[in-house]
This record gives sequence, structure tokens and C-alpha cells, in this order.
Amino acid sequence: MPPPTPSSLAATLPRDWQEKCAKRKQSQLDSIPKEWIIELPPKERLNVIDIPRECGLLSALELEITETTDVQTLLDKLRLGEWSSVQVTTAFYKRAIIAQQLTNCLTEIFVERALSRAKDLDDHLARTGTVIGPLHGLPISLKDQFVMKGLETIMGYAKWIGRVADSDCVLVEILNECGAVPFVRTNVPQTLMHGETHNHVFGRTLNPYNLAFTPGGSSGGEGALVAMKGSPLGVGTDIGGSLRIPSAFCGLYTLRPSYARLPYAGAMNALEGQESINSVLGPMTNSISGVKIFTKAILDKQPWRRDPLVLRKPWSESEYQLEAHGGGKQLCFAIMWDNGVVKPHPPLHRAMQMTKRALEAAGHVVLDWEPHRHLEIYKNAETIFAADGGHDYLAECEGAEPLIQSMALLGHPTDADVHESTIPVLEEPLVRKLVGKPYHRSAWELWQLHKEKRDLRKSHLDHWEATVARTGTGRPVDAIISPAVAYTAVPHGHNTDSFYTTLCNALDLTSSMFPVTFVDPQLDDANSPHEFYNHEDEHIYQLYEADKFPGCPVALQLIGGTHEEEAVIRMTEIVAEALSLAAAAT
Amino acid sequence: MPPPTPSSLAATLPRDWQEKCAKRKQSQLDSIPKEWIIELPPKERLNVIDIPRECGLLSALELEITETTDVQTLLDKLRLGEWSSVQVTTAFYKRAIIAQQLTNCLTEIFVERALSRAKDLDDHLARTGTVIGPLHGLPISLKDQFVMKGLETIMGYAKWIGRVADSDCVLVEILNECGAVPFVRTNVPQTLMHGETHNHVFGRTLNPYNLAFTPGGSSGGEGALVAMKGSPLGVGTDIGGSLRIPSAFCGLYTLRPSYARLPYAGAMNALEGQESINSVLGPMTNSISGVKIFTKAILDKQPWRRDPLVLRKPWSESEYQLEAHGGGKQLCFAIMWDNGVVKPHPPLHRAMQMTKRALEAAGHVVLDWEPHRHLEIYKNAETIFAADGGHDYLAECEGAEPLIQSMALLGHPTDADVHESTIPVLEEPLVRKLVGKPYHRSAWELWQLHKEKRDLRKSHLDHWEATVARTGTGRPVDAIISPAVAYTAVPHGHNTDSFYTTLCNALDLTSSMFPVTFVDPQLDDANSPHEFYNHEDEHIYQLYEADKFPGCPVALQLIGGTHEEEAVIRMTEIVAEALSLAAAAT
Repeated sequence: MPPPTPSSLAATLPRDWQEKCAKRKQSQLDSIPKEWIIELPPKERLNVIDIPRECGLLSALELEITETTDVQTLLDKLRLGEWSSVQVTTAFYKRAIIAQQLTNCLTEIFVERALSRAKDLDDHLARTGTVIGPLHGLPISLKDQFVMKGLETIMGYAKWIGRVADSDCVLVEILNECGAVPFVRTNVPQTLMHGETHNHVFGRTLNPYNLAFTPGGSSGGEGALVAMKGSPLGVGTDIGGSLRIPSAFCGLYTLRPSYARLPYAGAMNALEGQESINSVLGPMTNSISGVKIFTKAILDKQPWRRDPLVLRKPWSESEYQLEAHGGGKQLCFAIMWDNGVVKPHPPLHRAMQMTKRALEAAGHVVLDWEPHRHLEIYKNAETIFAADGGHDYLAECEGAEPLIQSMALLGHPTDADVHESTIPVLEEPLVRKLVGKPYHRSAWELWQLHKEKRDLRKSHLDHWEATVARTGTGRPVDAIISPAVAYTAVPHGHNTDSFYTTLCNALDLTSSMFPVTFVDPQLDDANSPHEFYNHEDEHIYQLYEADKFPGCPVALQLIGGTHEEEAVIRMTEIVAEALSLAAAAT
Repeated sequence: MPPPTPSSLAATLPRDWQEKCAKRKQSQLDSIPKEWIIELPPKERLNVIDIPRECGLLSALELEITETTDVQTLLDKLRLGEWSSVQVTTAFYKRAIIAQQLTNCLTEIFVERALSRAKDLDDHLARTGTVIGPLHGLPISLKDQFVMKGLETIMGYAKWIGRVADSDCVLVEILNECGAVPFVRTNVPQTLMHGETHNHVFGRTLNPYNLAFTPGGSSGGEGALVAMKGSPLGVGTDIGGSLRIPSAFCGLYTLRPSYARLPYAGAMNALEGQESINSVLGPMTNSISGVKIFTKAILDKQPWRRDPLVLRKPWSESEYQLEAHGGGKQLCFAIMWDNGVVKPHPPLHRAMQMTKRALEAAGHVVLDWEPHRHLEIYKNAETIFAADGGHDYLAECEGAEPLIQSMALLGHPTDADVHESTIPVLEEPLVRKLVGKPYHRSAWELWQLHKEKRDLRKSHLDHWEATVARTGTGRPVDAIISPAVAYTAVPHGHNTDSFYTTLCNALDLTSSMFPVTFVDPQLDDANSPHEFYNHEDEHIYQLYEADKFPGCPVALQLIGGTHEEEAVIRMTEIVAEALSLAAAAT
């Protein structure tokens, strides 16, 4: 069966598709408690990150709770009964609703259900004196893929409106057993396969550091929400950068685990059944402690006993203690200053320099990473994603809404109030040239792409292992540090680059994100032009002007080996500590 | 591009394709040292398992060496210098060449190279007093997929004659570093996707217990060779039963590890790039000690540092000690007497009864396994294997030789001397009815098969976990015991069943094989007919007559969870010990 084409689809759209979406959006608005509606700041105010402190909705205690970014501290206070789960959940819920009004980051809102759950947990603690699990009382936000019984999962598709789940996905089952309070679900782009966040049902999510900018995607709802401290910990997913791009644009910690380390069973997804390069789930949070606590809590529940695809690999304390990395005493990091495909903007370069200096000051070795076959790896991955010629997306849109092919502002009603950028969007990103005109490949053709992928993975592994010759530690490079995106948050429609992130998805390398600094026009002068690698590199170069991005977070990616979740978390802690010491010293 | 059809292929065959194959076969014959040629027994002698003892080629010491089936004992004697590697390698090489003359089990023969390697190892031990690794001096046979530098890998395809490798595959690299002596390569069926062993280049491999029977496949060369004690340990592969079927038909121990636990990188394969249900490699041997030693030796070399697909999961002593299974003190096994698709022959039933009694006598609990959605799982797997409509096979045969579509005797010159069975071969095995007319599926259609597979795996896992309600141990069933095939070795062309084995490939369940007994016409009376599940079940029923199979080995499969290699090995040891105690008690 040939896939339907966008034009054949348009002809079959119901006349009221926009009304149907608008109605669902209205019911979302109706689910917000009226007393939590705030007065919006003037339209020209683009940075709204401080509005929760200013708007008056949150009490002093609620501000204290929501600004306790260290997840371990929150959990300690919950366990000791210093703060009840109802208090904590209420505080984050109010702040999440503020974030929603400013950035449009949420999908499902279910205040009563969450508070009732929080109360049950408080009662349990009062009655028994014990917590029910390692996440007792903690509100957790979930990307709009993690199915919860009794709620819709719309995942950015008009056709999915009204599909109410009759059971929880495995992740939600486990979070509940750990004592967590799932309290909101967060926005995604239609198809999930964009690095920004916009769909016809819930509209576009904005970056709280600059509403004219994208928070990234596809876990962009989580990005904006957690940056606003509207959630202490969110769960997103990543198939080409969808955890790391919003973490980069919103200044968060995250972990992209290897394929099948954490349980995806029962969650919804795009490209269902595509197993060549697997989507993975991971935490997004303001503290590295949150990353560790979440990952360990899930693994300690033996997820392989509920999700047959999950690796039987318990949390390893010895891997966390970096046994295979000399105990972490003297690590060797390699910085990927430039992947040879697109050159990072000046703030990213400065963040890498800061990190290098901090790590050297802490006694670690820092080398330059030599990129290896990036463009081939990227092309292979993107061709795999397009192997069905778009059939999956088109089938989900068919008879319901148009397929959104670009994240540029397109005049849809939900974009009415979004600030527009004056810079023209890149017409044909490099990825389209690389992949060529999409067509529906055969199973055998897909197998040929797998062969190519396998050979590229082997080649990259050998390249990495060969660094043992130049580290001086007796080991290959322990981790690579690189940008996740060549730029910080950009105006809506301008994020076309997943060159730095997709590397890890294609090679299944464990990777994390850590925030480093903010764009500073005084320090981040534009570079003079270099010899451009390609037209997209040139476009990205032209996008940068120091005074356009002030205050945007700058975060970096740490890349370890496949199945090195524990080691990557520990190395990220080491980097964060080094940065914190370096900051204290200046 | 539509796949070529068999008829279009036939037209393009070169006129001399049979001569080309015959020439390669002759060069194999020429590589056998003349002094190792034995006088063949009379054609009517079908059981040749004792010929190595009778033919006079082996000295008393060589008989002692080759009949030392316990791999640990062999390694101890090699390490202590009691036997040199040259002695051991010579002994097994001579016996392998005897096996070759009787069963046609080999492909590549390279006596000088192997003996030179053995001598280097002996010199190292003499010089340094230390072994170079855990497999020091041990000859190891390899299925004709494991690429060795300087040798051809023909893998049953005429087109591959003359393709000489310029490097070793990762497995061979690691075996060499462990001190092993790769010494022969073994025969496979064309395409690898048959449960018997025949191709146009090297011909058909016969079962040493009955030359009119198949040793199984696709690792049938290993099966026949190891059964003849022509190799202390061989390495085969398994995508639908290819380690377990020959181990069943030849009475061997084996391990089918989970996907990507052991390194396949650099080995050749059929359906290259097919990643939905992965082929895996494992040992085939006459002792369970060989299974453990091989698996641990490979894992201790950190294969994930050379093969990017391999799980970073070191050998776990605590998993081997059955920590997750109550320390192994009281295990709960469940016996799958009948999978509801094809009913096992009487000898298999007796072997299961023997195992049940032995385990109960050893203090373990034994329940009946309730089969769960077998036929759906089997159909899904077989449909995936056929997703390219045969394109892969046809492309390898195109312009070189006909595609072999059945393992029945077909009049090819290499079959000239093979004993024929008088029973007609099943015309249309159940698998063909299930899969339907093969056609080349699209990538999206393959993704739909993956969705179905994922749901079946989840359903089966839940089914297994639910057994906790009836084990009495507080745990779900620890392992399932089942036939690997519904029958013991059968006449050539009659092995069409992989219903019991493919379950584990589709669900990625770790499984092992252990020999139990031999067919005994006194004990294994034919059953009266049951209500047949399908036409293949009926055919299999009719195939059995007690006096047709005397002396054929009867082996069973032990099935554990995904990534439970260590636990499955330990549980197999426990079962083997229980059987051995039970045998001693009678």
C-alpha cells in the first residue's frame, strides 16, 4: 500500500477539525482551578522565569518548596514529615499552572486526582511511620506518552482525542509503587519527531527564558515546566535528542539511557515497532541528584520482570563508583569542540572552555575529541527514521488534521499570540538533502541500513578504544563532552539541528546533560566567519548575534559508553562539582 | 526492486556450477593428511559412533585425550603440562578427520596452521610457566560463519568460494587471546535457515548415531563432530534452534544465550541486517563444564569493548549462584510436556519423566507448564524471517547455484551415497501454511510485526510471572523444561519442526540443552493416536515407530529468562547432577 500523500490527505479532512482541537484545548483550560489563574505580564516581556516569584500566587512556603531544586532534599523532608506530600504537590501544581499560563507546557491537568493520591501517601506515612518507596510523596510530571489509567493520551494527534486508557504503562506502575505522585502531563510536537514543541490540539510550548524562543523538543513541555520549577522531576523520551535538546535550551540535567535500560512498555510512541534506533525514557530535573534517584529507583524495581525488552542489569554500585574508570580519581575527558558538521555558537564554546578549566583544576585530564564519521552516522539514522516514507505519521493524521512538516509559525490559531522572529527559517535543512526524497523502503532495504549502522558502530567503538594511546591513564577516554545542539535556545522554527544528539542515539551511547552558564553578550562575541562545512552551518553562523540571546541557558552533553548509565551519572556529578568549585573560586 | 524468482535464477546459472563446487570439495579432500584416511565401514552400518575407537588410527593416549569429555579436566591437564597442546590438538584433529570421513561434518581443514599455533602455546608455557588464558591449548571447532584471517568462509554458498578473509572475527580474536586453538570449521545448510545440514559445496552432514538420519542444523557440522568427540568444544549459532536442534539430535550440551550477550561482530551470517530476532552464538560440547568455561572466558574479555552490540554485562557470580532463585536450594521447574502444536515422541516424554523424578528426588518442585500463545509467537517469528520475501537468499544464489528449498534428498551428486528413507517427506510443513505465500514486506509492515512481537513478549512474561501463585517458593517458576524438538534425530528431510526452539528466539529466553538418555525400543512404545492439533502433528505421530530410532540420543531444553545465562548454566548443572544421581541410584 503506498503511503498517502499530504495533498490526498488534505482533501479528506473533516471541516470541523480545528473546532475539535479548540474544544479539547478549552476543556484543558477548564480543568485549571480558577483561583490559580494569574494576571499575565505585558506581551513585550519575553523572559518570564521569575514570574512565579512575582505573581503572588505562591506562599512563602510554596516558593521555598518549589525552589528546593535538590530532589534528595525534597525527599528527605517528605520522609521526615517536615513537608507533607499534599503541601509539596499543591506547591508544584500551582507553579506548574503558572508555567502553563506563560509557556503552554501542559497537556493533561488532574489536580484532584493528584492531591488525593498525595493525601493517601501522607496518611500512609502518618499511620505506619514508613514511606512506601524511594520517591514517597514526590510530584513527577510525565511527557504526554506515559499512559495513565483513566486519562487520555493525545500525544499531539487530533485523532487521539478521547482515547482514554484502561491501565497504566509500566513506568507509571513503578513510579506509583515507589511512592511518586504523577501530577501533570506535558506537551509534545505532533509526530514527536521535531526538536520543538507544537501540535494542533494543545498548541505551541514557549521557552520561559524567552517566549519568542522554543524550549526545544520533543520533550519541550517538560523542558519549559521544569525550568520554571513547576515540577521537581519530569520524565521525557529521546530518539534523536528529545530529552537533551529541551534540557539544553532550558538549562536542565537529564540522562539519555541506553536502549531498553528503563521500561517503555505500555507507553505510546511515534513510529511504533521501529526497533532499529530505539526511543528511550529519562528524567529531566534541576539537580543531578534527581537523575540518580530516579534511575536507581526504577532499576531497583526490576523492570525486566514487567517489560520483556528491558535489560536484566540491576543498578551497579561498583559501576557508579567508576571501578572501570580508575575509581574516578583521574578521569580523562575529551571535548568535541566542533563535530565538523555544524560549528557551535560562541556561548557553547565558552561553556566547553569553562568545563575544561574546571576539570583540569580538579586534577582530570582533558583532550580534544576527534570526531569520527559524524555525517555518515547521522545520515544512516535519519534514513532509518524515514524508512516508512512517512507512512506512520500520515496514517495518524489521516482524516483528522494536516501533517505538520515544520515547526515554523504557520498561522494556526494556537500560534496567534506567539512572538515571531524576523529571521527567515532555513528552507531546506541539511537532513533533507542527506536523506533525499523520502520513500517507503522494503524490509530488505531496511536490513541494509542496519548493516551500515552496525559497521559504523564498530568503527566508532574502535576509534574510541584507540584513544588509549593518548590519554595517559591506561584507559581509553572516559567520557566525551560536547554540545547537544550547536546553539542555545533559538526563535521558533529555527531548531533544525540534531547532529550532536543523534550521534548517541545511533551509537546507543549513554549521555547526560548538565547546565554550565548563561549567554552573556559581554563574553560571547560573535566569531568571524569560518570556512562553512555546508549551507546549514552557514545559516547557523548567521543566526548568532551576541545581544539576541542574553540570559539563555548554556548546557553541555556528557557521553559515555553503551549501558554506562551509572558511570555517566557519576561522571556528570564530578563535572558538576568541578564547575561549582570553579565558580566559587572566581 | 522485486526479488528474483527461483525460475528466473535457474536460467542464469553458469553451466559449470556443479564442477566449481566439486572442485572446492576436492580441495577439501586434498587438505586431509593421507595417513589419516581410514577404511570406511560397510555401507549398511548406520551407527558409526564407535568407529574412532575401532579404526586403529588413534593411539591409546589419543583415545584417552579425546574421550576426556570434561573440558575442565582437559584444561587442567594442559595447564599442568601433563598433555601438550600439540598432543591434544593432534588427537582431536585425527578424530575430527575420522568424523569427517564418516559424517561429512567439516568445511575448512588446516592441520599445519593449527598445530603450529598449538606449538607456540606449548613453547609459551614451557618458557614462562604460565598459560596465556583460560582456554590455553584447547582445540575449538567453529561453525562455518566464524571468519578467520587467511581462510575462506563459504557458509554453504557456491558464490562465496574463494572469499578469503583479511582479519579474524571478534570471537576468534578473543578465543586466540584466551589461548584456544581454532582447528576446524564445520558444515552448515545453504542459507543457514534449515534444521538440517546440506549445501552444494560441501554436501550433506550425517548423524553419527544413524547415517540415514540428520544431525540437525544449522550447526549440524558441529553436532556430528562433537558427538564423535572430534572436538571438545564447538561454537555454533542459533536463530530458530540452530544450536539446540543439533544438540538434541546428537546428545550434547549447549547454551543459547540472549541476543547480544556474546560477540557476533565480524562473523558472516544469513539475513544480514535482520535485527528483529537476532542470531546468537553459543558452545556445543559433551560436558556442562565446557558451557560455563566458554561463556565465562568470553565475558571476562569484555566483548563490549570490541563489539558495540554486546551488552555491558560481565559474568555475574551471584547470578550463577542463583541469588535471584533462592540460592538454588529449592527450585521450581515447570515441564512443558506438549506445546499444543506438535506432541513429542515417546522418548522425549520418557526423558521428561526421568528429569521430573530426578529433580523431585533432589528436593526441587516440578509443575506442569501451561503453554501460552505458542502458535502466534511462532507465526510472528517465521513471518519476520520471511519479511524480505527470500530476497537475501536468492541474491546469494543468483548466478551461482539453485536455491535449496528443502532438505530432502534431491539427487545432487553430493547426496549420491546418502541412505534414503522410505517414509515420504512432509510436503507442506505447517510453517508454510502459517506464513502464507512469502512476499517482500515494507519497512512499515515489518514494524507492525515488531509491535505484535513486543505484545506477545509482554503477554508471555506476564504469564510466566503469574506462576508465582502456584510454585510455593515465593518466586515464579525458575525454569521451564521442554523438548527442543518433538522427536529425536529423524531421516534426512524430515526435520521441519522448530516450534519448541523458536519460542526462545522470539521471546529471547536464555536456554540450554542437556542429554538425558537414548531411545530404547523396550521403553519407548508408540502411543495410540491422539486428537491431532494439525496435519504436521499427525505426520510427526506417524513418523514414530519404536524400533526405528534405537540408540538415538534424547536431550531436553532448559529455558530461563532473558539475560539469565549464568542462572541457566547453574540450573543446567543442577539438573545434570540430579539426573546423574538418579541414574546411579537405579
